[in-house]
Amino acid sequence: MAVGDVTMPLMHVVQGVKIGSTEAYVRYPNRRDLVIFEFAEGSNVAGVFTQSAFAAAPVLLSKKHLAENTPRYLIINTGNANAATGTVGYKNAETTCAKLAELAGVQANQILPFSTGVIGEQLPIERLVQGIQPALNDLNADRWAEAASGIMTTDTTPKGASEQFELDGVTYTMTGISKGAGMIRPNMATMLSFVATDAPISKVLVQQLLQTTVEHSFNRITIDGDTSTNDSCIFVATGLAGGAEIESQDDPRYQQVLDVLARIMNRLAQLIVRDGEGATKFITVQVEGGANTQECCDVAYSVAESPLIKTALFASDPNWGRIVMAIGKAGVPNLDSSKVQVWLGDVQICLDGGANPDYTEEAGAAVMAEKEITIRIDLGRGEAKDTVYTCDFSYDYVKINADYRS
Amino acid sequence: MAVGDVTMPLMHVVQGVKIGSTEAYVRYPNRRDLVIFEFAEGSNVAGVFTQSAFAAAPVLLSKKHLAENTPRYLIINTGNANAATGTVGYKNAETTCAKLAELAGVQANQILPFSTGVIGEQLPIERLVQGIQPALNDLNADRWAEAASGIMTTDTTPKGASEQFELDGVTYTMTGISKGAGMIRPNMATMLSFVATDAPISKVLVQQLLQTTVEHSFNRITIDGDTSTNDSCIFVATGLAGGAEIESQDDPRYQQVLDVLARIMNRLAQLIVRDGEGATKFITVQVEGGANTQECCDVAYSVAESPLIKTALFASDPNWGRIVMAIGKAGVPNLDSSKVQVWLGDVQICLDGGANPDYTEEAGAAVMAEKEITIRIDLGRGEAKDTVYTCDFSYDYVKINADYRS
Repeated sequence: MAVGDVTMPLMHVVQGVKIGSTEAYVRYPNRRDLVIFEFAEGSNVAGVFTQSAFAAAPVLLSKKHLAENTPRYLIINTGNANAATGTVGYKNAETTCAKLAELAGVQANQILPFSTGVIGEQLPIERLVQGIQPALNDLNADRWAEAASGIMTTDTTPKGASEQFELDGVTYTMTGISKGAGMIRPNMATMLSFVATDAPISKVLVQQLLQTTVEHSFNRITIDGDTSTNDSCIFVATGLAGGAEIESQDDPRYQQVLDVLARIMNRLAQLIVRDGEGATKFITVQVEGGANTQECCDVAYSVAESPLIKTALFASDPNWGRIVMAIGKAGVPNLDSSKVQVWLGDVQICLDGGANPDYTEEAGAAVMAEKEITIRIDLGRGEAKDTVYTCDFSYDYVKINADYRS
Repeated sequence: MAVGDVTMPLMHVVQGVKIGSTEAYVRYPNRRDLVIFEFAEGSNVAGVFTQSAFAAAPVLLSKKHLAENTPRYLIINTGNANAATGTVGYKNAETTCAKLAELAGVQANQILPFSTGVIGEQLPIERLVQGIQPALNDLNADRWAEAASGIMTTDTTPKGASEQFELDGVTYTMTGISKGAGMIRPNMATMLSFVATDAPISKVLVQQLLQTTVEHSFNRITIDGDTSTNDSCIFVATGLAGGAEIESQDDPRYQQVLDVLARIMNRLAQLIVRDGEGATKFITVQVEGGANTQECCDVAYSVAESPLIKTALFASDPNWGRIVMAIGKAGVPNLDSSKVQVWLGDVQICLDGGANPDYTEEAGAAVMAEKEITIRIDLGRGEAKDTVYTCDFSYDYVKINADYRS
């Protein structure tokens, strides 16, 4: 069960974006496991991808195509990640693009392929190719919710965010979906996320907006510290709602779009944590008072990824000794522990590196009983700060990952 | 239940070392939770300690005393780590040493204090101090097994190793104990380990032998990636079995002592993994073909600490995609995945970065069904290699850490 409100909002249509899906039986029967996005001509597309040295075949091919041409289609399958599949896997990704290009009347390098699911098995390429025409036949602007379901693996709920906003009197839409659940500590991207707007934004700024917002959304969540071979995040601006193209950061509309995108990306990233495998709690780890952002991040991840802290959160045990343990091992050079403060919610548990004499177990236990918990740490050595989102570590995490083949 | 043979061997007496223990009721009644070691005058003592920025009060004081004087006594309590306890905690560690010094007729800085247990609570210093005289009254050469039990926390079994060996016709003994179980990824030392020999070794070489052997024993194990605030490892040479002091690495006896110590340290470190919290399997991760040792270690730890791999090991699922995921995220610069080979036991699962066409699920499953499993990875880019030891990740890990207050 996901933590907190994970309801799919009204998924507003984005002008210039159509989505189709079909049952291709990539791994399991009776589910729409093949999704195609179509972007109107002239759309600007940006992508960020996993930094894994074992980046999957579709990731390699998507990066190549994105550099060579202007994308018109995304094709996404779940059930099989086409990762660690060697030259056969790469050729299968190429075949997928070639077939879609032929049927859609575009060039093969205008297709970006994505896969998620089991690593190390070859795609059932015949079944997948046979699904392309049915998915194209299904193309429709109002299919965002179906796409969100279509890309799920161990997710228990589809994940979407959508906003309408106004720039200079013109109404625009931004809508996006994501999937996640496990193998989540993205590095430059999440498992899979696709966000589109019909606002007019130049190609350069589309990439810049994506990179800026991914850094504080998908690059600040962790479920198990494991980075996938297939993480990809795509942002597309079709421009079809009209208005002059945003070509410079000095355009006042740039900051407005950035704000909307940051909200959408944060929501999509946090939805992944809320639906983390076995998650029963949503945890925010805020680190402030650092000498620089990197050390704030290091401490936040050390806390957010500690199995001892995550099991204590699951047990609602205000076991703050484990938090100082995780701060201590984070590798911050010359950290003076006597300047460190730690709060659970509003309750200060650690004062100047030791137990806060005013702290009571009851006060700590009351915070830990909540479903949404903030751990705040002040390192007392500077002005930098950063935030990481995670979930707790439950019996069900073990059960899900002992049973599921990813 | 610990994995494999963890039987306590015959714990040979070390000439010049006496051990006493008592029930001081540090946290729980009816257990010998206070242990004192006495070393004969002239013993050479070396120590390595946690690198945590939140190093506990006894760690700070032990390091100070070790630098100032020649240790004659160790005093160890379980049940309370005296970590994150501020100036009060430091004063309590000093009081402990002062009281023992007074009763034993030595100087306070000839005492090294050690604590393990809950973080962030003050020691019950009165009860602890009251236990010192009874523990001293109990001093006896033949108490190694009791000491191994006395220092346990969530350990399910006491941990010991002991050997007799001959140098130039003289018979010497080396005996040691360790404790662990959780919060285990030591950095320069383990939770607690104490090893003694009656061989004559100079102070400089005692420290050198300890640092050399710790690097490939306690510094190569991980249970949950969490480094304790209290990790400490002590090696003492009393010299009381006779013979001329070993003062140089050129002395042929040096290599012989090194070999014995390496075996003892490896055994004590691996016993901690075998008794890892909730462990059902003992895992060896061997990485070879690296450009340097560091990247071999990085890959080995990335595999050994991946919750997804550890849950698959628990489930006996030959889910090798997760292994390449962990290799891919380890941060090895410019790793060419097409040169990577992976074996489960003797079964090659990954050939040149992709699925080995000769691999069968049956062969992989047969290896995974074993209690002791070796994962071997060849990075195909050099001659360096390294090995890390870990265990799997079970329901019981979550249960133990959700219930236990550390």
